[in-house]
Amino acid sequence: MMATDITQPIQKIHILEDGHVTSPKGFTAGGVHTGLRKKTLDFGWIHSVVPATAAGVYTLNSFQAAPLKLTKKHVDTAKKIQTIVVNSGNANSCTGEDGMKKAHATAELVAKEKGIEEHLVAIASTGIIGVPLPFEPIKKGVQYLNDPLCQNVSDFERAILTTDIETKHIAVEFEIDGKHITVGGAAKGSGMIHPNMATMLGFITTDAVVDSKSLEEALKATTDKTFNMITVDGDSSTNDMVLALANGTQGNTLLNQDHPQWTVFLEGFQYVCKTLAKSIARDGEGATKLIEVEVIEAKTAEVAQAVAKSVISSNLVKTAMYGSDANWGRIITAIGYSNQKIEPEHVKVSIGDTVVVEKGIGVPFDEEAVMLTLVKDDVKLIIDLQQGQHSATAWGCDLTYDYIRINSSYRT
Amino acid sequence: MMATDITQPIQKIHILEDGHVTSPKGFTAGGVHTGLRKKTLDFGWIHSVVPATAAGVYTLNSFQAAPLKLTKKHVDTAKKIQTIVVNSGNANSCTGEDGMKKAHATAELVAKEKGIEEHLVAIASTGIIGVPLPFEPIKKGVQYLNDPLCQNVSDFERAILTTDIETKHIAVEFEIDGKHITVGGAAKGSGMIHPNMATMLGFITTDAVVDSKSLEEALKATTDKTFNMITVDGDSSTNDMVLALANGTQGNTLLNQDHPQWTVFLEGFQYVCKTLAKSIARDGEGATKLIEVEVIEAKTAEVAQAVAKSVISSNLVKTAMYGSDANWGRIITAIGYSNQKIEPEHVKVSIGDTVVVEKGIGVPFDEEAVMLTLVKDDVKLIIDLQQGQHSATAWGCDLTYDYIRINSSYRT
Repeated sequence: MMATDITQPIQKIHILEDGHVTSPKGFTAGGVHTGLRKKTLDFGWIHSVVPATAAGVYTLNSFQAAPLKLTKKHVDTAKKIQTIVVNSGNANSCTGEDGMKKAHATAELVAKEKGIEEHLVAIASTGIIGVPLPFEPIKKGVQYLNDPLCQNVSDFERAILTTDIETKHIAVEFEIDGKHITVGGAAKGSGMIHPNMATMLGFITTDAVVDSKSLEEALKATTDKTFNMITVDGDSSTNDMVLALANGTQGNTLLNQDHPQWTVFLEGFQYVCKTLAKSIARDGEGATKLIEVEVIEAKTAEVAQAVAKSVISSNLVKTAMYGSDANWGRIITAIGYSNQKIEPEHVKVSIGDTVVVEKGIGVPFDEEAVMLTLVKDDVKLIIDLQQGQHSATAWGCDLTYDYIRINSSYRT
Repeated sequence: MMATDITQPIQKIHILEDGHVTSPKGFTAGGVHTGLRKKTLDFGWIHSVVPATAAGVYTLNSFQAAPLKLTKKHVDTAKKIQTIVVNSGNANSCTGEDGMKKAHATAELVAKEKGIEEHLVAIASTGIIGVPLPFEPIKKGVQYLNDPLCQNVSDFERAILTTDIETKHIAVEFEIDGKHITVGGAAKGSGMIHPNMATMLGFITTDAVVDSKSLEEALKATTDKTFNMITVDGDSSTNDMVLALANGTQGNTLLNQDHPQWTVFLEGFQYVCKTLAKSIARDGEGATKLIEVEVIEAKTAEVAQAVAKSVISSNLVKTAMYGSDANWGRIITAIGYSNQKIEPEHVKVSIGDTVVVEKGIGVPFDEEAVMLTLVKDDVKLIIDLQQGQHSATAWGCDLTYDYIRINSSYRT
């Protein structure tokens, strides 16, 4: 299905200068402050003018939060969602029956306020785990859903943040059947970011008419190559999900995997997901730089993925990157413990454009040139296994004093 | 085979007040400074008066260092080792043919100096990866092997350290067939410590007569419950190994798994390994405290181990412990992403003696009492899965500013 390689340059796709989750036709979004957090916006929403075809991917954590369970049930009901509400400040996770009741009550209130069926409401929560969700703020937030003064997509983007610093948004345009299709997205990330979904919420919107099953498969396959390839600290949370909504307002002929221009749609969709995923990694807790690990010439796609994830997750690689130290021994070590059959004598490692390991052995290199590469905001490590034809890319960030500061005093 | 539970109190075993790897009869050890490191001791040895029955466990990292490969070959030759030499300052890893030649040359020099066959020599290296091993210091070190003024076990213990702060040693005594048997041990750890062997070296000695196959199996099974259950930072190195030597100088009847007192030997052996493993975790890079995670009532031993390792490895749990923060949401999260079938509604979590989660949901607890537990040097987390009868314990440490400081400037 994934006919196009995500790492190839995008053809036919135009990136909007200031793209958002509301760039596709028929979507509005907004956010307000309800008191769940002290000062910052903490309650946001996305609304589609008509029920949108919906697909979701969810955390693999055994402890799934109440809002996530309810949203999954609602998406599965008719594969349609019209309104998404998101709160930060409280994850409504490990909150038992009380949490489930409040998730239901939230959906009920939203459905009433928007005049839609309850199963068309998706809810997402992020924040502290295990503390009962204060419900008054939620009630208050719902009252603003239809307020014309509160429909501002930037407020939505800010309302879903927790320890993130930057809002994450993107939109792309392309043509399908002569129709002008837009795909937009918003996300939050920061802590507990790791392959297999993390404290990460992603929302993808499009005004294209998309077949439900094809949308679902596109989301799953793309997530595996994007959101599931980022890590901040190796922790996967209880609340993570990515929702994709296609409201069909452009009236194109139904897009599915047999459509001649399916790959164009997929390219745009993937580009949006990849951009959001990278933004999350770059904005990891305490991060000073984005690290990209590209594994090439692996025997299988699984080996490529496992090696990329192993290196991007290594605390020792991450601290070396923080120190702008070309400590390739740590990269080699992380490749070695990825539990894959690696032939050490074939492995080549480059930091940026500089080869530092050849045939599994360190080679002399220009330390100063590599240092100049490592002090940049974007660092790329390339691992050439020279054992096959498969590749994978993972994204992460450095591990810094600020990560410790943020996480050794979270609750207090 | 493992008839005794390692967590049970030791019976019949006497812990020596100042026990070392040389407490068993017929072992000597020493260490010197050769220049591999700037100032500190960097070359050490253990020698047995007669060839000792030997067993080893080795890193699972695909990149195995030259000294490790050679030692494995030597142990496999006749299951006998008489002299172990260890250098710090350079791991002789990812050093290709040059590294292998130097490992061989080291063994050759040692064999000559000690007047023994080359296959009776084991060598171990720890330190920077990928830098050619300077050979002059090695030559210099070998010259001291027989120097009576340099036979000091504390010097050996210091010579094998890298970023460790404390030497790690222990010995226990017990009776077998009326003979006074001693088991001793020394280890180094600190960075790159993770289940499945780490930048960790362990040396266990005993004066008992032990069957070679039984020693090997005891070492493997014990390592799985001790050295493989510690983590500092999730990185497993290229050089890790544990060697066990039984020189038989006590002349007891051959100890094997059918011997009526085998379990007594095993208790002593396990106690030594467990003590060293815990010392390594406590002395992890930048650590301020030892964390013990005990998982009980798991469906299988694998589930218990996986959950224990998942929690002990979580950066978010480790930073919470550093901040003495009873953030049980992070513990629950780490349980949840252990890839095991967990029934969240049965999970109970305690911090020290205080229950903080019951049936997967947070319960009110005395924050002050838990805080007093968390500020101690030893913190115990108990996870009761209430799904079966299996248990496992893992040890680790907190993640601190000092870990970042140490590792963001290692090479420079």
